[in-house]
Amino acid sequence: MRFELNKEFLEEIRDAIHIENKEWIETHILDLHFADIAEILGELNNTESKFIYYLMNEGLQADVLMELEEEVRDRFLKSLSSKEFAEQLENLDSDDAADILGELSENEIQEVISHMEDDEAADDIVDLLNYDEDTAGGLMQKELIKARIDWPVDRCLVELRRQAEDVEKVYTIYVVDENNRLVGLLSLKSLLFAKPKTKIVDLYQHKNIISVKTGDSFDEVARVMEKYDLDSVPVVDFQNKLVGRITFDDVMDIIKEEADKDFQMATGISEKVESNSSVWKISRARLPWILIGMLGGILGAQVISGFEDNISKIPALAFFIPLITATGGNVGVQSSSIVVQFLARGNAINNLKNRLIKEFLLSLFNGVICSSIILGIAVLFKNITLAIVVSTSLFVVIVFAGMIGTIIPFVLNKYKIDPALATGPFITTLNDVLGLFIYFTVGMILYQM
Amino acid sequence: MRFELNKEFLEEIRDAIHIENKEWIETHILDLHFADIAEILGELNNTESKFIYYLMNEGLQADVLMELEEEVRDRFLKSLSSKEFAEQLENLDSDDAADILGELSENEIQEVISHMEDDEAADDIVDLLNYDEDTAGGLMQKELIKARIDWPVDRCLVELRRQAEDVEKVYTIYVVDENNRLVGLLSLKSLLFAKPKTKIVDLYQHKNIISVKTGDSFDEVARVMEKYDLDSVPVVDFQNKLVGRITFDDVMDIIKEEADKDFQMATGISEKVESNSSVWKISRARLPWILIGMLGGILGAQVISGFEDNISKIPALAFFIPLITATGGNVGVQSSSIVVQFLARGNAINNLKNRLIKEFLLSLFNGVICSSIILGIAVLFKNITLAIVVSTSLFVVIVFAGMIGTIIPFVLNKYKIDPALATGPFITTLNDVLGLFIYFTVGMILYQM
Repeated sequence: MRFELNKEFLEEIRDAIHIENKEWIETHILDLHFADIAEILGELNNTESKFIYYLMNEGLQADVLMELEEEVRDRFLKSLSSKEFAEQLENLDSDDAADILGELSENEIQEVISHMEDDEAADDIVDLLNYDEDTAGGLMQKELIKARIDWPVDRCLVELRRQAEDVEKVYTIYVVDENNRLVGLLSLKSLLFAKPKTKIVDLYQHKNIISVKTGDSFDEVARVMEKYDLDSVPVVDFQNKLVGRITFDDVMDIIKEEADKDFQMATGISEKVESNSSVWKISRARLPWILIGMLGGILGAQVISGFEDNISKIPALAFFIPLITATGGNVGVQSSSIVVQFLARGNAINNLKNRLIKEFLLSLFNGVICSSIILGIAVLFKNITLAIVVSTSLFVVIVFAGMIGTIIPFVLNKYKIDPALATGPFITTLNDVLGLFIYFTVGMILYQM
Repeated sequence: MRFELNKEFLEEIRDAIHIENKEWIETHILDLHFADIAEILGELNNTESKFIYYLMNEGLQADVLMELEEEVRDRFLKSLSSKEFAEQLENLDSDDAADILGELSENEIQEVISHMEDDEAADDIVDLLNYDEDTAGGLMQKELIKARIDWPVDRCLVELRRQAEDVEKVYTIYVVDENNRLVGLLSLKSLLFAKPKTKIVDLYQHKNIISVKTGDSFDEVARVMEKYDLDSVPVVDFQNKLVGRITFDDVMDIIKEEADKDFQMATGISEKVESNSSVWKISRARLPWILIGMLGGILGAQVISGFEDNISKIPALAFFIPLITATGGNVGVQSSSIVVQFLARGNAINNLKNRLIKEFLLSLFNGVICSSIILGIAVLFKNITLAIVVSTSLFVVIVFAGMIGTIIPFVLNKYKIDPALATGPFITTLNDVLGLFIYFTVGMILYQM
């Protein structure tokens, strides 16, 4: 039976808090999984949350705190004093503590750090704050289990027991030399079944050790962990010294976030929003694309106004404006989205020329099908000339839109701009304007013939 | 130093294969990480791949086989005889073997299974084939490590050593009672530091054990593993008997795939394609949306033709057609994408009414901003009446488009249709047609006043 939060239970919880029924909360809430408790706190206000929070022990507090959604956590932490804040940080893993501190101002960080009593934990956090938050260094945690290559198994077990207190999930034991350089890996499994006097050097795995450098980007870390199916990856500095590790759950969160961001960008939302973000924040994230689209519309109006005489004479030309713009937009978005995913995978052997040739063949094919269909339908509509104008220009628009949709993401990528941006505003707007120009030019030529 | 595949190295490999230089391949290829070898095989043809493949030992063959991209793997396996195929299957984890077999016809499956020599492995695979491939049962592997609750630690270690031969990554030990019912978990860490005579019952964790049922959907499994940050989750049947486990790497693959699918759907690609898919396959995946868009364009033409007289009299009305359709489309796609992500998270407490109210406020706000801007610009363009027509209808279109974008995904979701479909064709087409209707109706009314 997995936990499901519903309105009735939430009401019961609120009632228990308001009459300060600690016993009820201990039996009904504190025994739940920390992820479920976090879900509950997410629905309560700060005062209510605090009441439950301070009934928990330190370990549970830390787990729950890190499971809270970011907005809820920030709101909650802001309601604490610096001293209370510092106490909470000491319970967290170093990477989590650094992430939270990283969002404060320099002064606030100093204030909170000064209240921390565990100097070693404080040092770890301060050290992590030095790394750019978009890199492996910013993502890693200091807590890990390592063994010296010259230890025997029994010595190793004694040391590991000490280290393991700070490390919730072990995954892999990192093997280092006397200078703390990463030289290999050791699985818990192999250690479990080894004889006490066996040396680590005879047990450990030293071939194809995958590690990341502190300066490697998020994307690179995610790509490496995915490619090699790693549950955790060691982080080393320029001298190959072991400085931290990154576990799969952190990477999974990032992959999800990036996917959400790409999806939102492709649908015209310029800033990461949650469904529970404020109207103001969502509005701010959505306005840019609407405005760029409007700019395209105004440029389009400019193009059409250049052909005002033609429209006065043949008003039916106006009928097919939406057909042209919609198809150009659709084809452009489709072709760019394939290129964006292609670039995101970091594929290097294939290239722009090959993609352009492929897209060209595709556009020819789709263009012939679509313009044949529209030729048939447009004939029914008005006259033969109009039908030829619409189908010819549709064909040209499909080919052009496909080419533009393929080129733009490559160009953005070259200038280090996220190519996902292309699947949104750029392509659609550009293709709208270009499509209209093609349509009316073809119309003008064919009607004059 | 991580491996990077480049054209020069690929040429060297091809040369070595063609002169059958086994020694070169053993030194330069077989010592690489299996994920890198898989990357190399992905670039070679079947004959070339086979040459390398049969130089590897069984364990490496299995690892490489599962790392190949699906298209490459299918192509490769199809080139094997049933007997060779069966030999390869025996090396794989049960879930991987079942996945591969599941894509064959009944007859082919029987043929391959009949060639398998390891009966236990064959039984496991046949058993897994019974589960729907979109469920936890279809995703799980049979290989896991379990301990009986009444065992002491030393007995447990002996049993585990035997079980561990089949299990590459251990993660968690599942604790079961005498009827194989899941009763708790045991970490390798706790076992490593326990005394030999301690009973498992005194060591194991029995509170908040998260498991999934064989019939649970992919989405549910992914949601649970993400929510509870699990590296692996046990799978139980209706009697709570332990039947398998699912590890994070399988789920990570699915999350990525679903995200890719959603992204493609939002950008108008109706069928999962890879950037290296054939022109024919990509074309087939892209045509439906282009055609739906064209249908919208034709309906739009129908709407505009109803106002032909107005356009003859005031050709400038046609100028702003692209502005209206582009903005309606953009707003609709934006609002639907937020609802789609909201629904994908399985959020239950919030609902349609709340979202509609929020979207309404948002639309009012964005509508006022956009129509004020356009009022200013349109005034410069032509005449005051036209400016009022454009800005009034733009406002109405923004509000309607936002509402439609919010409602459609909820409706699709209710009828068990993937709401992500809504961010593509439906919304854009509907909003195009509706937007034109609003625009020309407002135009007609205001010009007659």
